[in-house]
Amino acid sequence: MKQGTDSTLWLNATLFDGLNTEEQPMAMAVIGAQIAWLKPMSELSAADRSGFECIDVAGALVTPGLVDCHTHLVFGGNRAGEFEARLEGKSYEEIARAGGGIISTVRATRAASEDELFEAAKPRLQALMADGVTTVEIKSGYGLSLEHELKMLRVARRLAAELPVRVQTTLLGAHALPPEYKEDADGYIELVCKEMIPAAAAEGLADAVDVFCENIAFSVEQCERVYAAAKEHGLAIKGHTEQLSNLGGSAAAARAGALSVDHVEYLDEAGVRALAEAGTVATLLPGAFYMLRETQLPPIELLRRYGVPMALATDANPGTSPMFSLKLMLNMACTLFRLTPVEALRGVTAHGARALGLQQQVGRLAPGLQADFCLWDTKNPAELAYSVGLPRLTQRIFAGVKA
Amino acid sequence: MKQGTDSTLWLNATLFDGLNTEEQPMAMAVIGAQIAWLKPMSELSAADRSGFECIDVAGALVTPGLVDCHTHLVFGGNRAGEFEARLEGKSYEEIARAGGGIISTVRATRAASEDELFEAAKPRLQALMADGVTTVEIKSGYGLSLEHELKMLRVARRLAAELPVRVQTTLLGAHALPPEYKEDADGYIELVCKEMIPAAAAEGLADAVDVFCENIAFSVEQCERVYAAAKEHGLAIKGHTEQLSNLGGSAAAARAGALSVDHVEYLDEAGVRALAEAGTVATLLPGAFYMLRETQLPPIELLRRYGVPMALATDANPGTSPMFSLKLMLNMACTLFRLTPVEALRGVTAHGARALGLQQQVGRLAPGLQADFCLWDTKNPAELAYSVGLPRLTQRIFAGVKA
Ligand SMILES: [Zn+2]
Ligand SMILES: [Zn+2]
Repeated sequence: MKQGTDSTLWLNATLFDGLNTEEQPMAMAVIGAQIAWLKPMSELSAADRSGFECIDVAGALVTPGLVDCHTHLVFGGNRAGEFEARLEGKSYEEIARAGGGIISTVRATRAASEDELFEAAKPRLQALMADGVTTVEIKSGYGLSLEHELKMLRVARRLAAELPVRVQTTLLGAHALPPEYKEDADGYIELVCKEMIPAAAAEGLADAVDVFCENIAFSVEQCERVYAAAKEHGLAIKGHTEQLSNLGGSAAAARAGALSVDHVEYLDEAGVRALAEAGTVATLLPGAFYMLRETQLPPIELLRRYGVPMALATDANPGTSPMFSLKLMLNMACTLFRLTPVEALRGVTAHGARALGLQQQVGRLAPGLQADFCLWDTKNPAELAYSVGLPRLTQRIFAGVKA
Repeated sequence: MKQGTDSTLWLNATLFDGLNTEEQPMAMAVIGAQIAWLKPMSELSAADRSGFECIDVAGALVTPGLVDCHTHLVFGGNRAGEFEARLEGKSYEEIARAGGGIISTVRATRAASEDELFEAAKPRLQALMADGVTTVEIKSGYGLSLEHELKMLRVARRLAAELPVRVQTTLLGAHALPPEYKEDADGYIELVCKEMIPAAAAEGLADAVDVFCENIAFSVEQCERVYAAAKEHGLAIKGHTEQLSNLGGSAAAARAGALSVDHVEYLDEAGVRALAEAGTVATLLPGAFYMLRETQLPPIELLRRYGVPMALATDANPGTSPMFSLKLMLNMACTLFRLTPVEALRGVTAHGARALGLQQQVGRLAPGLQADFCLWDTKNPAELAYSVGLPRLTQRIFAGVKA
C-alpha cells in the first residue's frame, strides 16, 4: 500500500456510498486522489491504520461529493427584472417587447466576452460548490451560433481549470431557434450538425450534445439528426424531453443511446419502458417544476417499477430555475415529487454520475473512484433532504484535497 | 456630530430602506450602534465625510438586516426520520404509533437540558444569520408545562446573549394540548393563563404570547382568555390563525390588539378588514405552505386592497417547516403566493419588524434605528427574491459591528 502524507484514513463515518447507507460505522482510506478501500470499523486492524493520517469523524455523515448533472450556469445578463415585471402584472407580450425571455439571455451572452462570462459564472458555480457539489455539468445554448456556443463551452472548461470541481460540458446548440434562423429550423439544425458539433468535437470542448425536444423548440426528427451527428463525432447524447408535452422525445433519445433524458414530466409508460431498455437515466428537475408552478408530475411510480435510475439536478438557468443550491433540490424532489430521501440522495450522487457517463469515476464511495466526498454535521442521511439551510457541510474534499 | 473609529460612512450604496429602493446612490452614516443619517451621494459634501471611516460599496445593494418574525427554532429531537417514513409510505397512524408527530418533539424537548437545547438551536440560528438575519423571534411551545416552557424561553434569551443577533421571545404555551391534559383543554388554558404567563412575565422571559387557534388546537374563546392574561401582564399578542380553516381567530386576535396573525391561508374579507382596522400585521409562512403541499392561498389581493402589512417568516420548526433560510422564503413568497419582490423584501424587513413591535428599532435604514444591515453581491433588490443560493451576502452588520 502506498504510504505518505497524502494517505488519509477517515474513521467512524456514517457512510452513504451513493446508493445505500452502511449499517455500521465505516473507515475509508484515501490515497492521493483516489478512494483506496473501505472497511467496517469493527474489522479494522492496527496494520490497516499504518502509514495513514487518521481523522475520526465521530459518526458524522460522509457522502460522495454531489453531482449536479444538468445546469446552464454560463450566461450573460440577468433576468431578475423580468421575474419582477411578471409578478408586478406585466404580460408576457410586454416583457418580450421590453426585450425579455430567453432571447434576452442570448443577446447578453453573445455580447459578453469570455472573461465576462467567466466572472459571472464563477459565483454561481461557487454557490453550488458551497452546497457540496464536486461534479457539475454545464451546457451551452445561449450562443446559438458557432462562435458563441464555442465561447460558452470554453468558459465551462476554464471554470474546471480554475476551481476545484469537475466540469462536464454539453453542447446545447439546439436549445432555441436564433433570430437569424426564424422560419428555418431545419437550416439551423444543419448548422448545429455540420458546424457546431464537428468544431466542438475537434477542439475537445464538448463531452456531450443535448437538444430541446418540444413543440416550442425542435421536433423529434430534428433531434434525431442532432443525435446522429453527435454519435458520428463520438460525443454522448442527452435530451430535454417531455417537459411540456409528450412528443416521444425521450424514447427517441433512448433509442439513440442517450445517457439521460431530463425533465420528463409528461413521459408515458412507453417512454419509461424505452428508458429501461436502453439503460437511460431520467433526470428530474424540481426547481423548474417549482418555478413554473407546473402541476404535471413526472411518472415516479412508473420509473420505480421499471427500475429506471432517477438523477436530480438544479437546471440552474436564468429563466426557469435560478436555483444555485443542489441541496434544496433534495427537499424539492421529496416534497414535490414524493421521492424518498434515499432516492433523492442517489439522484445527486450515483445516478447523477451515471447521467453523465461518469459512474466509474465519481458519484459513489468505492475503491478506485475519485476521492470526492462531503462531511456533514449530522448522522442521518435523510436530514439532507428534510432540512433546508441545514445540516452544515463541514468539509468538502475534491480529488482527495480539502477544498 | 460624534466622531471616532466607530463612525463609518458607507458610500455609493444601492439602498433598499425596508420599504423602498432609493432612486440614486446613497451614503449612510453609522455612529456606534446606530444609523446617524442618510444622504444621496450627489448631496454629500466634504464636511459630511469628516471624522468617518469611509467604505465605498461601489453600487452594491444594502438592505436592513433581515427580520425573521416567526420561528420555533428551540426544540429537542429530530423529525427527519418521520419525514422519511412518510415518504416511504408509512401512514400517519403508524408514525404516531412509532412516537412521531409534535408529541415526539415535546417529549424530546422536555427530556433535553437547557444546555442541550442551546447547542441544538445554535446552528439553526447560525444558518439564519448566514442568510442575513439580524433579528429573530423564537417561540416556546414544545414544553407545554410551566417548567419546560420557561426552559425553552431561557434558551432563547441565552442565544441572544451569546450570538450577535436580536431575539424576541414568545410564550406559545397554547401550542398543543399536552398528554397530561387530554380531554381538559380548558384546564390547560387555565395553566397557561394563571401560571405560565405570570411566571414568564415576572422573570422577563417573554416579549409576547402566542396561541394556535384551530380546530385541532384551541378555540377562539380559549385564545381570547390567553390574550386577556397576556395583556394583564403587559405582554404583546400574536396568533397562529386561519391556517387550516376559517374560525375567525385572526379577527379575534386583531380585536385584542395583536401585533400579527400568522399563516392566514383561510382568512376571509371580514378578517382582513379586522386586521386593517386594528393595524395588525399578516405574517405569511410559505415554507409551511410548501412543505404541507397546501393549495389554499392566503388572500394576498385582499390584504393589498385593505393595506394590511404583510410580513414573511420561515416558521422554522421540526414538523411542518424545517426551513433555516429566510432568503428562500423571499423566493417562495413570490413563486407560490405571487408577492412582488418588493413586497417580499418589506416582509422580511420593515413589516417583519412591525410584526414584532420593533418598528422603531430595526427593519428599516433610517436615522435613529439600530445599525443592522446587509451588503449583497448585486445591485438589484429583486435578485434577492429571484435567485436561490445567490446573490452572496458579503457583509452582515449587527448593531454597527461586522458579525
Ligand atoms: Zn435545462
Ligand atoms: Zn408557527
